[in-house]
Amino acid sequence: MIKELVGQRIKQLRQKLDLSQEKFALSINMDRTYLASVEAGKRNVSIVNLEKIVNGLQVSFENFFRAIKRL
Amino acid sequence: MIKELVGQRIKQLRQKLDLSQEKFALSINMDRTYLASVEAGKRNVSIVNLEKIVNGLQVSFENFFRAIKRL
Repeated sequence: MIKELVGQRIKQLRQKLDLSQEKFALSINMDRTYLASVEAGKRNVSIVNLEKIVNGLQVSFENFFRAIKRL
Repeated sequence: MIKELVGQRIKQLRQKLDLSQEKFALSINMDRTYLASVEAGKRNVSIVNLEKIVNGLQVSFENFFRAIKRL
């Protein structure tokens, strides 16, 4: 469940920045297919990779998780 | 850096609950030595394991990460 919620939140914030998966993955030096699988809720993402993503989305971890329960 | 901050926050919250590593690890069905290495900042903990820990500490992810920048 948490994997899906995290993936949906990443997608929501990425789209808010009007970035494609490709452009966003490039901007944080992450493999696009890996990012796609994280967004699809298929990956048990690690804290280091999640930090890369959250920083790239220009939000704090606190903000990132604030909206998760209301998704 | 994030690994160390997450580890320190887990230890802080665990001690607030007055639980030993052993008792806490048992309560969340996690290997004590693994929990010890997470607290020591040595593990790139996954979101699924972090959820187990955060739930066991009886805080939300938002609350968990709120205090991280002020550690």
